[in-house]
Amino acid sequence: MAHARPALVIGSVAIDRVATPFARSGRVLGGAASYAAIAASYFAPTRLVGIVGADFPSGFLRRYRRHGLDLTGLQIDPKGRTFFWSGRYREDFAGRDTLAIRLNVFEKFSPVLPPAHRGTPFVMLGAIQPALQNHVIDQLAGRRRPFILADTFDLWIHTTRPELDRLLRRIDLFVINEEESLLLTGERNPALAGRALRRMGPRIVVIKKGAHGSALFHPEGSFAIPAYPVTKFVDPTGAGDSYAGAIIGYLASVNRSDFPALKRAVAYATAVSSLTVESFSVERLSSAGRRAIDARYRELKAMARL
Amino acid sequence: MAHARPALVIGSVAIDRVATPFARSGRVLGGAASYAAIAASYFAPTRLVGIVGADFPSGFLRRYRRHGLDLTGLQIDPKGRTFFWSGRYREDFAGRDTLAIRLNVFEKFSPVLPPAHRGTPFVMLGAIQPALQNHVIDQLAGRRRPFILADTFDLWIHTTRPELDRLLRRIDLFVINEEESLLLTGERNPALAGRALRRMGPRIVVIKKGAHGSALFHPEGSFAIPAYPVTKFVDPTGAGDSYAGAIIGYLASVNRSDFPALKRAVAYATAVSSLTVESFSVERLSSAGRRAIDARYRELKAMARL
Repeated sequence: MAHARPALVIGSVAIDRVATPFARSGRVLGGAASYAAIAASYFAPTRLVGIVGADFPSGFLRRYRRHGLDLTGLQIDPKGRTFFWSGRYREDFAGRDTLAIRLNVFEKFSPVLPPAHRGTPFVMLGAIQPALQNHVIDQLAGRRRPFILADTFDLWIHTTRPELDRLLRRIDLFVINEEESLLLTGERNPALAGRALRRMGPRIVVIKKGAHGSALFHPEGSFAIPAYPVTKFVDPTGAGDSYAGAIIGYLASVNRSDFPALKRAVAYATAVSSLTVESFSVERLSSAGRRAIDARYRELKAMARL
Repeated sequence: MAHARPALVIGSVAIDRVATPFARSGRVLGGAASYAAIAASYFAPTRLVGIVGADFPSGFLRRYRRHGLDLTGLQIDPKGRTFFWSGRYREDFAGRDTLAIRLNVFEKFSPVLPPAHRGTPFVMLGAIQPALQNHVIDQLAGRRRPFILADTFDLWIHTTRPELDRLLRRIDLFVINEEESLLLTGERNPALAGRALRRMGPRIVVIKKGAHGSALFHPEGSFAIPAYPVTKFVDPTGAGDSYAGAIIGYLASVNRSDFPALKRAVAYATAVSSLTVESFSVERLSSAGRRAIDARYRELKAMARL
């Protein structure tokens, strides 16, 4: 990490309980920011901004610290409880149903960047409300214009479109999945959807297609990568968040955002998210280590080599 | 084509009438063998084996001849009519409905290889009945063991499984789509499905995933390639047939079937099938020319380069 710059990840922190057709988890660490920040930490020093309640297990905090996360921006509300989500994946993982959702302290979350974080050069805005994402951008005040990655999800596309449109004009990289891309553009063809999304503002777009890999659209060209062939699939929760987190972490680690760097970032993200789905929660992601990530990156590179 | 060896394609020849949500064709040249043989002809001298009736338009024969196809093995039944198929694609091309099917001369098709074809070193068996595919293999009698590619479709998986199982133990390369792979193996994960299919007999397996690209499983490793980003999508009919035809043609052109050759064959197949879907029938495939194929091959190579 000779030239590594810090990355900042902002988003939800949660306690999850997940059921799949094959297994169920206990109360485990969840939330987009948890997955993304741990993923980013493999590449660059990472700052996590979020909110938890008094019930947040100390083991989860230790997990964060084991990854060297800077928790200055993690608000702990001593009078509240942590965001809780429980869900069940349907057969063949075709969709999931929310069994219980308690926003708790997350409901009134207003992200405040600690002064030392305002100059972070690589920022990931997890899929919180677009108004809050914009509010975070307002607080960024480094000497250099930061590189901003944002995620979103279907609820915001349906309910707060004008605020989302404003956000899209302020970010560098938009990372969304295929269904959200269809919802936003009406375009099923990934190449045309990528173009349409770039016209909405972001210079760079990544469309995630789950088991079908992902596609990068950049002013200098496009890039497509298959998914890593996972054979021990356990739980898809957090795959997309760790994917985005790996991108911001990798870019921070090389302090670049040009096309070749973005292609490598997307390949690392593919490797990282393939580890995430091999366990509940952040277990496998957290225990895998950089060597396992590098090994999968090399495999992906070999798999695509003509 | 200095070292090019001949390729043989056997399968259906048809007159099609196709409707999509956006347009409809007239009575056009169709059938797996038409798409596959024209695709193969870009790479190697190609022999087409099939059957047509007295009504088969001379313009369609001229089209074949323009691609230099050897039609010695094309039976013309003067008392019968050509296989006719009419279908309509549903919205978003999510499936298609057959509006009319008249097997005509195809119903009693018994493929007979002309003596001069029996030593063809690269053979593609289109998705005709597995018993007929086996019957073709019985007629192959070259000095060298031929390389055999076979396709199938869901009907044969449901109705003639033992005969299909026998076929699978006699071929080198099995090329099928994702749904057929699921049907045959019960395995949704492409990496595991590829493994399961190879255990059924074929040394090499290719699983086609439409807009999501394709995956090659070979004893020496696996290879994944995204679809070419087509932006003028007209009609998917024949995409898979031209894909398989390009593979057999490319392998014949280099007279090899090792892993590097197969990776390139799959990339050429991806380029070729992306042209097929840009028109009804073989129009675009036939008019594109080798330069357009090579250009897309290079684009695909660049798109995957890390």
